[in-house]
Amino acid sequence: MLYMVEMDVNIPHDMPEEVANEIKKTEKAYSQELQRSGKWAYIWRVVGEYKNVSIFDVESNEELHTLLSGLPLFPYMDIKVTALCRHPSAI
Amino acid sequence: MLYMVEMDVNIPHDMPEEVANEIKKTEKAYSQELQRSGKWAYIWRVVGEYKNVSIFDVESNEELHTLLSGLPLFPYMDIKVTALCRHPSAI
Amino acid sequence: MLYMVEMDVNIPHDMPEEVANEIKKTEKAYSQELQRSGKWAYIWRVVGEYKNVSIFDVESNEELHTLLSGLPLFPYMDIKVTALCRHPSAI
Amino acid sequence: MLYMVEMDVNIPHDMPEEVANEIKKTEKAYSQELQRSGKWAYIWRVVGEYKNVSIFDVESNEELHTLLSGLPLFPYMDIKVTALCRHPSAI
Amino acid sequence: MLYMVEMDVNIPHDMPEEVANEIKKTEKAYSQELQRSGKWAYIWRVVGEYKNVSIFDVESNEELHTLLSGLPLFPYMDIKVTALCRHPSAI
Amino acid sequence: MLYMVEMDVNIPHDMPEEVANEIKKTEKAYSQELQRSGKWAYIWRVVGEYKNVSIFDVESNEELHTLLSGLPLFPYMDIKVTALCRHPSAI
Amino acid sequence: MLYMVEMDVNIPHDMPEEVANEIKKTEKAYSQELQRSGKWAYIWRVVGEYKNVSIFDVESNEELHTLLSGLPLFPYMDIKVTALCRHPSAI
Amino acid sequence: MLYMVEMDVNIPHDMPEEVANEIKKTEKAYSQELQRSGKWAYIWRVVGEYKNVSIFDVESNEELHTLLSGLPLFPYMDIKVTALCRHPSAI
Amino acid sequence: MLYMVEMDVNIPHDMPEEVANEIKKTEKAYSQELQRSGKWAYIWRVVGEYKNVSIFDVESNEELHTLLSGLPLFPYMDIKVTALCRHPSAI
Amino acid sequence: MLYMVEMDVNIPHDMPEEVANEIKKTEKAYSQELQRSGKWAYIWRVVGEYKNVSIFDVESNEELHTLLSGLPLFPYMDIKVTALCRHPSAI
Repeated sequence: MLYMVEMDVNIPHDMPEEVANEIKKTEKAYSQELQRSGKWAYIWRVVGEYKNVSIFDVESNEELHTLLSGLPLFPYMDIKVTALCRHPSAI
Repeated sequence: MLYMVEMDVNIPHDMPEEVANEIKKTEKAYSQELQRSGKWAYIWRVVGEYKNVSIFDVESNEELHTLLSGLPLFPYMDIKVTALCRHPSAI
Repeated sequence: MLYMVEMDVNIPHDMPEEVANEIKKTEKAYSQELQRSGKWAYIWRVVGEYKNVSIFDVESNEELHTLLSGLPLFPYMDIKVTALCRHPSAI
Repeated sequence: MLYMVEMDVNIPHDMPEEVANEIKKTEKAYSQELQRSGKWAYIWRVVGEYKNVSIFDVESNEELHTLLSGLPLFPYMDIKVTALCRHPSAI
Repeated sequence: MLYMVEMDVNIPHDMPEEVANEIKKTEKAYSQELQRSGKWAYIWRVVGEYKNVSIFDVESNEELHTLLSGLPLFPYMDIKVTALCRHPSAI
Repeated sequence: MLYMVEMDVNIPHDMPEEVANEIKKTEKAYSQELQRSGKWAYIWRVVGEYKNVSIFDVESNEELHTLLSGLPLFPYMDIKVTALCRHPSAI
Repeated sequence: MLYMVEMDVNIPHDMPEEVANEIKKTEKAYSQELQRSGKWAYIWRVVGEYKNVSIFDVESNEELHTLLSGLPLFPYMDIKVTALCRHPSAI
Repeated sequence: MLYMVEMDVNIPHDMPEEVANEIKKTEKAYSQELQRSGKWAYIWRVVGEYKNVSIFDVESNEELHTLLSGLPLFPYMDIKVTALCRHPSAI
Repeated sequence: MLYMVEMDVNIPHDMPEEVANEIKKTEKAYSQELQRSGKWAYIWRVVGEYKNVSIFDVESNEELHTLLSGLPLFPYMDIKVTALCRHPSAI
Repeated sequence: MLYMVEMDVNIPHDMPEEVANEIKKTEKAYSQELQRSGKWAYIWRVVGEYKNVSIFDVESNEELHTLLSGLPLFPYMDIKVTALCRHPSAI
């Protein structure tokens, strides 16, 4: 089941750089593990912003929330979820 | 080069049904030809709306505009284009 | 799987009253059948508006879109879907 | 009498974790007591957000405000209340 | 129980003047009857707009919706309802 | 002359509680004095929010600004003023 | 007493040109009479739009509404009123 | 003196095609004449929309409004003007 | 050449009062000097807000930006500029 | 390939002035180098704001993101990118 997930990252300016870097490193590993599993189907960077557009392919709303709320950057992101389905014109 | 394209369809209520059906039929053929060519990489329906989220993979801004403005439903759609690029965490 | 669905109805002022009444009658029957099946779990009227807030309990995004796009009033509604899941404090 | 209540939680990033945890623990107990009483009829998590959609069933506007303003997380939430009533198509 | 109700009137430009006048006349009578009953506690015109701000004093959400949806101008208004209660500083 | 005034209170989270309480106490006295004078005609709490809707009855725009900018909570409020007048249907 | 009034004109595309011209002619005469009286203190065109920004100098909210609702273009305008007063730095 | 001008075109769906084509032809000639004069310094199409972003180089606000309100498509466009000036980092 | 300038002041709550007072004092002197020169033609307070609406009469966009960016409160204001010109109905 | 880029700068008020100045100095050098290369085709200041409107002429979405995310002020800016292409009326 597919969902578009838009993630807008806002790291507080007063977070020490090494803390931020540690979180970003963990985030990257977390993201890549989910990509390898096929659940995080696509991730693209929005040009000019610290934001991504992603497609998730999961079993349920429940699973999607578990994955997203487990993101190391979750407390610093605005996330917008859009439920998708097959388009009648898709080949 | 990738772009997210969101297309929101608003067909006027007073358009005769056979005219609307003819346009939708042409639209579907046009869309599927572009999908087969690889330029219209993905198309998903937004659940509950007469709207799609698509990913285009084209050579240039110019080519994208030519493809979109050629859509039979173009005069009846609100279209929003977002330029995308590779995400540093993408595998 | 649960979804909040907000439906805002805008029937064009120039639709003949008997046409509108016929659509509303079919809509009511359609809605009540889905309610009886358990898929349209709740429906409430928003006070002062021609709008409802509903909770759907369906198998998938796909099924939800099929049900919503089949609504007789679908061409005359703005629909907003929000994916829900269990709240950790729910009893 | 029914109300939809949307609660969007924004805990300041500089709140010490043990303070935040203490507030969340009290919040959970407070919420569950109200759920058991039947006044907080439903609570759902919005997928991908630190936000819930709830349905309250109370005697009056007055009672709803008393319950909501007593929430331990009240100072850290954006709350939006929508008055609901029976839908004519509800079974 | 108190509610603020904001009513924004948009009569279609192609409605014949005598039809519009008839509706407005009925609306006025309907409004004044409710004002006399005490249920429509206050009504004020917003300066420069075809809009009013009103305070209703009714028994329930249900009653408020019945009154509002019975307004002769209801199909031509955007209505926004805000639930109110006693302010702790009110004398 | 009547005005609707909507006051949305946002006290900074790092203000010491005793400072906040002192301001709120002064605010309450200030508000009640104006209510007694008849200038602050009504004040209602918006359900679920730290916000009020008020009606002021004053001599002029000038006087209204003087009263509002003198509110002890003025630096911590978003205030929106709407000029009102008699509604032709008011009894 | 001063007010900023922003008037955004939207004449329906299907209004016959001679009807529109007649209304605009009456509007101009109405506006100039009010300007000569000093009540419509200033009127400026917003560059690139069919919109004006005006300053009115009137006795009361009541008088302002009477003047504005009497505008021949009133049914075709979105009007926004902002109450003004003397600025402490004004010379 | 420079201005960014964003023009969003909305031709009514019921305008006969030959009328629309005639207006667009006149618009093109009008635009190209202004481009040749140097006053309409740049014009770009926004990808995926019937909209342009332009830079005008004119003597005054007055002149810009005269040019824009003279556009054959002016009655069918939403126009937004932004005053620009030299950037301190411009070479 | 005329411009409407809307200035919304947001002084950070943690700025020491004597620093804020010093800036406001300099701001007032700066504003009054420009008013005396005729360049800051009008300044009005928006009722209930720490905001002003002003009219500037300057030679160019360039000059307006120089004046505005030199405001002592410039780093603490949201400023919106609207280019104005003569209205055809102005007397 | 052309893009409009709008950059809105928000430097935190608690950043030490010498740090801010150092970043701005590096930003200016970075910007001017890109301007000299032809990639940052135009940069204009928005009158009255700490914001610029720019036109970039680059090879790809990828290159644009690399240039923008390398801006020394990138962490302190809201950036909005709009893909542009040739306008059919451009001479």
